[in-house]
Amino acid sequence: MSNRIGLDVMGGDHGPSVTIAGAADALSRYPDIELVLVGREEAIQAELAKHEIDDSRIEIIPATETVEMHESPVEALRKKPDSSLRQLVRAHKDGRCQAIFSAGNTGAMVAASTMGLGLLPLVRRAGIAVAIPLPDLQHPAMLIDVGANVACKPNHLFQYAVMASEFIARVYGVESPKVGLLNVGEEEQKGNALVKETRDLLASSSLNVIGNVEGGDIFNGSCDVIVCDGFVGNIVLKTSEGLSERLLGAVFSEVKHLFDEAAGGADTGIGDRLRKFAARFHYSEYGGAPLLGVDGISVIGHGRSDVRAISNAIRWARQMLTVHVRDSMVKAIELNAARLEQG
Amino acid sequence: MSNRIGLDVMGGDHGPSVTIAGAADALSRYPDIELVLVGREEAIQAELAKHEIDDSRIEIIPATETVEMHESPVEALRKKPDSSLRQLVRAHKDGRCQAIFSAGNTGAMVAASTMGLGLLPLVRRAGIAVAIPLPDLQHPAMLIDVGANVACKPNHLFQYAVMASEFIARVYGVESPKVGLLNVGEEEQKGNALVKETRDLLASSSLNVIGNVEGGDIFNGSCDVIVCDGFVGNIVLKTSEGLSERLLGAVFSEVKHLFDEAAGGADTGIGDRLRKFAARFHYSEYGGAPLLGVDGISVIGHGRSDVRAISNAIRWARQMLTVHVRDSMVKAIELNAARLEQG
Repeated sequence: MSNRIGLDVMGGDHGPSVTIAGAADALSRYPDIELVLVGREEAIQAELAKHEIDDSRIEIIPATETVEMHESPVEALRKKPDSSLRQLVRAHKDGRCQAIFSAGNTGAMVAASTMGLGLLPLVRRAGIAVAIPLPDLQHPAMLIDVGANVACKPNHLFQYAVMASEFIARVYGVESPKVGLLNVGEEEQKGNALVKETRDLLASSSLNVIGNVEGGDIFNGSCDVIVCDGFVGNIVLKTSEGLSERLLGAVFSEVKHLFDEAAGGADTGIGDRLRKFAARFHYSEYGGAPLLGVDGISVIGHGRSDVRAISNAIRWARQMLTVHVRDSMVKAIELNAARLEQG
Repeated sequence: MSNRIGLDVMGGDHGPSVTIAGAADALSRYPDIELVLVGREEAIQAELAKHEIDDSRIEIIPATETVEMHESPVEALRKKPDSSLRQLVRAHKDGRCQAIFSAGNTGAMVAASTMGLGLLPLVRRAGIAVAIPLPDLQHPAMLIDVGANVACKPNHLFQYAVMASEFIARVYGVESPKVGLLNVGEEEQKGNALVKETRDLLASSSLNVIGNVEGGDIFNGSCDVIVCDGFVGNIVLKTSEGLSERLLGAVFSEVKHLFDEAAGGADTGIGDRLRKFAARFHYSEYGGAPLLGVDGISVIGHGRSDVRAISNAIRWARQMLTVHVRDSMVKAIELNAARLEQG
């Protein structure tokens, strides 16, 4: 059976033109997938006409409403029963697809997925895991949670660690992933009440816990999984994005200036080469962030997702399906719950 | 009267050779300062012999012990009454200097300053304010707290905002500094309990509050003061440092490669030019982070402080003395406490 992935065509800042272009790109790259396109039918048809897509590999599910980027999630979902997001989740729940992706309102995607799909057995909260590009390694690190849950309890963080470890083990083949707890210092006595209690839970787990890690460790490859509450994680993620853009922007304009000057005005092509280089550090390299803990596969995209990001997010959903990440997460959660009870 | 600044000669990863070189640099740059050098006397004398320093502008206060970087702060201070840190704070308290700086154990400097100097009237907690370089503007933004207080209450954050606003208004002449509350979104309903309650306090203040800001806003010049609890701030700071080093390191090595290739192996000097450019974004541009809220002037340096960072931190302590930042903070705290009572 083919891997069927549902796509919220209306999601993201750029809307259907970009999501459908991303869909077309993914269909051409991965012969073993089919896509369920959810959104306003006329918009979908208009965009599909611009691409050569095999009709037999797509299904359209019409949805007349759209949750906008800045709407209050729960309210918007209630007010818009025929929104593309709700129809997308319903399609997954009903088995019309086995994974879903949206680059729309993140809070609404979290709420719709959690309510519509439910949580995995024993799991208390879903968390968003984002891939941190580590260009020197064969795989990214996973930072969880980056904003699904801003009022975390120790057990939530603990379960995030378990799920993200299974995720990176299955999806990237990392053996015994190294788990770090994001904190203000490496010493045991450091941190607030939440991290101290989480540390105790992690100590009795089946995971390969390396202990407390600091902000700088997120990017140096010392951990495969970095756990934090959604308030901290969201700020870390947006800080990193903002700083990267600012630094790379400033450096590139300076370098281009120096380079063009040295070349005496000749076109050096440096701009393109730098952009290509920077892409290795860019969020669109992974495209989507899996919402771990829901009973299904739900992948959330950046609002600014471009064609490459959409296509890469679909690749990721496909990969999660292929390696059966859900089943191994369920087992790992059960195993660790039993260990905690014994401990 | 001259500005007398105390320096923990033993502080920092590089010890006396770097702190004394920084002291010599600052003395040559600022004719209106005198320095009180605190630490092991023989080490100080040995390093002083390497520089031409006017004896009349320095005083040495011997201290036989040193708090190491990874010692538990409170315990180390208790066990080492003759540590350079405790002697440094005592010198300030006794009026032998009007400001102090250490690049040593941050937690110990916070604890020693808070216990030894006390807090300003009405202030409940001291917070570390770090300068975020904004090369396009004439002044940095201030992020507070970056780690003095990992268990913040709303009133702590509120007072941090008041003090940092006064700081940046006096030290950098910024009129009506824009204050942002670091959060996971700009919408009012976003965030955890701490930021929601802090938001209510800020709304009734005398400050120019622009509301919730996100991680990316730290670097884009949209606020002059960004307030967060010390747990979040410390992680943001270390994330930013780690990411900057990683990105700039990777980009520079790529660019140097491209540049040298284009120059056919000739020495282009690109490495030096890039390093000079990057320095504008580097922590050593400011060198120290003021601990706001203590009844005195206490400036904390990065453990890795180099000569430039030490010298710049001394410049900053001097500037804080010159503009009487303490008195204006006390007034602003009183004014806002009165407003809160009325509100």
